[in-house]
Amino acid sequence: MIPSRVIETKRDGGELGAEELEAFLQAYLEDRIPDYQMAAFLMATYFRGLTRVETDALVRCMLESGAVLDLGYLDGARVDKHSTGGVGDKVSLVLAPLAAALGVYVPMMSGRGLGHTAGTLDKLEAIPGFRTVLRLDEFRAILETVGCAMIGQTDEIAPLDRRLYALRDVTATVPVIPLIAASIMSKKLAEGLNGLVLDVKVGSGAFIPDEERALDLARTMVSIGAGRGLPTVALLTAMDRPLGRAVGNALETREAIACLRGDGPADVVELVIEEAAEMLLLSDASTQRDGARERAREALSSGAALDRFIRLVEAQGGDPRVIEDPSRLALAPERAVVEVVEAGTVGTVEPRVLGFGVVGLGGGRTRMDQEVDLGVGFEVDVRPGQRVEPGQPLGTVYARDADGLSRGTRVLREAVRVGDPPHPRPLISHRVTAADV
Amino acid sequence: MIPSRVIETKRDGGELGAEELEAFLQAYLEDRIPDYQMAAFLMATYFRGLTRVETDALVRCMLESGAVLDLGYLDGARVDKHSTGGVGDKVSLVLAPLAAALGVYVPMMSGRGLGHTAGTLDKLEAIPGFRTVLRLDEFRAILETVGCAMIGQTDEIAPLDRRLYALRDVTATVPVIPLIAASIMSKKLAEGLNGLVLDVKVGSGAFIPDEERALDLARTMVSIGAGRGLPTVALLTAMDRPLGRAVGNALETREAIACLRGDGPADVVELVIEEAAEMLLLSDASTQRDGARERAREALSSGAALDRFIRLVEAQGGDPRVIEDPSRLALAPERAVVEVVEAGTVGTVEPRVLGFGVVGLGGGRTRMDQEVDLGVGFEVDVRPGQRVEPGQPLGTVYARDADGLSRGTRVLREAVRVGDPPHPRPLISHRVTAADV
Repeated sequence: MIPSRVIETKRDGGELGAEELEAFLQAYLEDRIPDYQMAAFLMATYFRGLTRVETDALVRCMLESGAVLDLGYLDGARVDKHSTGGVGDKVSLVLAPLAAALGVYVPMMSGRGLGHTAGTLDKLEAIPGFRTVLRLDEFRAILETVGCAMIGQTDEIAPLDRRLYALRDVTATVPVIPLIAASIMSKKLAEGLNGLVLDVKVGSGAFIPDEERALDLARTMVSIGAGRGLPTVALLTAMDRPLGRAVGNALETREAIACLRGDGPADVVELVIEEAAEMLLLSDASTQRDGARERAREALSSGAALDRFIRLVEAQGGDPRVIEDPSRLALAPERAVVEVVEAGTVGTVEPRVLGFGVVGLGGGRTRMDQEVDLGVGFEVDVRPGQRVEPGQPLGTVYARDADGLSRGTRVLREAVRVGDPPHPRPLISHRVTAADV
Repeated sequence: MIPSRVIETKRDGGELGAEELEAFLQAYLEDRIPDYQMAAFLMATYFRGLTRVETDALVRCMLESGAVLDLGYLDGARVDKHSTGGVGDKVSLVLAPLAAALGVYVPMMSGRGLGHTAGTLDKLEAIPGFRTVLRLDEFRAILETVGCAMIGQTDEIAPLDRRLYALRDVTATVPVIPLIAASIMSKKLAEGLNGLVLDVKVGSGAFIPDEERALDLARTMVSIGAGRGLPTVALLTAMDRPLGRAVGNALETREAIACLRGDGPADVVELVIEEAAEMLLLSDASTQRDGARERAREALSSGAALDRFIRLVEAQGGDPRVIEDPSRLALAPERAVVEVVEAGTVGTVEPRVLGFGVVGLGGGRTRMDQEVDLGVGFEVDVRPGQRVEPGQPLGTVYARDADGLSRGTRVLREAVRVGDPPHPRPLISHRVTAADV
């Protein structure tokens, strides 16, 4: 394996042998290939892609570069859900305890917010005391007793992926479908799962807005899972508007709790029920889809899911009183209700504008080492297609100070466009399984 | 200037502002941008190219990163010639003293052989004692007294180019026309010239075999020169066969001396005369082309050019007795005449096969830090289109030992193909000036 030849082959659109690519990746992991050769290779993949064989070799190297959880001690199936990231996506906070209540073990390793999207870890940390960094033995014990546990990715998992991601981040080589797919799947394969549900966001607020490319990503990930014996189902879900009403960490946590209390926005609840049903189907092949949905709805309305969430919060050191009293979530002190100015039909609610609006209020990151203000954000009162009249509330801004309020007000007004013809995407537009790829 | 944005803009096919690109390059030169970001940028330029504005900005940064010779103390025009590199190209050794004999100052900075082509410095060093590393004051003095001086590129010239070239070499980003053009022109612009002749090789033995791409390179370089006030003329010349008969360092030096003695192969002599005429035209606008050719032929046949060469060799520490007695050139001791096997017409004499054949005999480099055996190589007795009969000599192999002889014999037989229809390129197919671009 000659590194410059590997780069050249990729540059010229040829296919690398699995052994050749693995030798290249292994040499990089062992610091025998410098970052600059890897950077040139990554940029070549931006233009040339990776074949299925190459992608599988990359996933294998990433996975084998680190530890794989052995969760065989659990007496039931382990199924996780991963979202590619969107604005207002608080599904994990509701879904993990719900699936646990249905008897599915959920060993969930999540990320932090970056760019215009928030992350599950930040939302959990809006609960006073909640610890997202656990020792592995704590994680395993909580998973066994509560049925779910939620932590950040540990250093032991897929170190090659972490190194490659850091390099991609500074070399403009992030948006490459097979690299994204391999990065996600290597981490999920390390969780020792029996099934995986992928929520692939599509629309202007998604990292990959285009439907064809989002489908390509979904198919690539499902195929990687199938190839390594992990049954994987991907749903393409709408991110041309925020999910739910709340955008911003603590606000989203509050909305997730409302969902668990039976009072969530219809779209969040529908997506949670569908994904819980997929997880049930993956955990037990004999389940029927309608029955699975019914059981999920029942566990949500009965309070069984809420009960799991309370136990999860307690187990991970959080203050469970936030469930009864959401004011204990560190919400920003300054609030302003923004009103509709002109009558008309809401055309779009731009998720990206709101997401970057949260960053602008101090509630998001443009670099991974930034602190975030978990209390700021927006609650949006209108949806695309809705008829509005002047004076009616458009939404509420939560900010740290008066200056933030006025900036947030401008963001909210910019995000909601009245008059555009509304063409909202269906909440769930595609379902991709191994049979489709 | 945000480095990842610069990379992204190039990746997406956009044009960078001159200031933005200069800031990026300057930051790289000052080690504020790491090699891996530059490597990603270079690979993006492989796919997207550089615009004229971007190329000019790159040349400016390369040039300003180092010293520029001030040759204003000379009482005449300074004109240099640069070849993009081919097999058997010993033109510089004849041309520099010839132009000097015609009153043109030639401050020539050359390179070493790499890959399948040999370099002027190696050929000069086949002359016992010849020093190609001179102090700048020595170089200036020899240039003034002899009219020409021939050295390697000094560390002071265009250090940014040297750093970028080293990075390109290991990241599969060498074959990018604007990068090649900027690299060549930044070094030539640093020589403080009044005119420049470019010999752009085209055909299977050239680094850029394709005529369209070679023309693109020629036009890019001529345009860079014009943009910076350096009148530049480029000739596209044939490299679908070796130039002359000799391939290999000392053998080529011997052939160059033969040319200076009035006994050179017709193609080498023709190219030398044409390039000398171009140099004369650039040094004095009142010259007529026919007159310039005539003066060049006269200076070659009268021995004036040979006299300059002898003075050059003496001034740079070489043994001038090699001119009378070429056996003093360190030619390899083992020789074998290879004979034609089957009758027919010679279709092709593959320059690349012969060039790599020299490398295989120890006379070339695959890495810049390799020592070379200057004495090995080939003398080819046949040309494309020539009718041959069995038993007639095909050429002679010069090797260090018997094993080398047998390898060299195979190379010579492989390089000469009898039976292919011959389609040799015209020796000089295009002439590109600023008026054409």
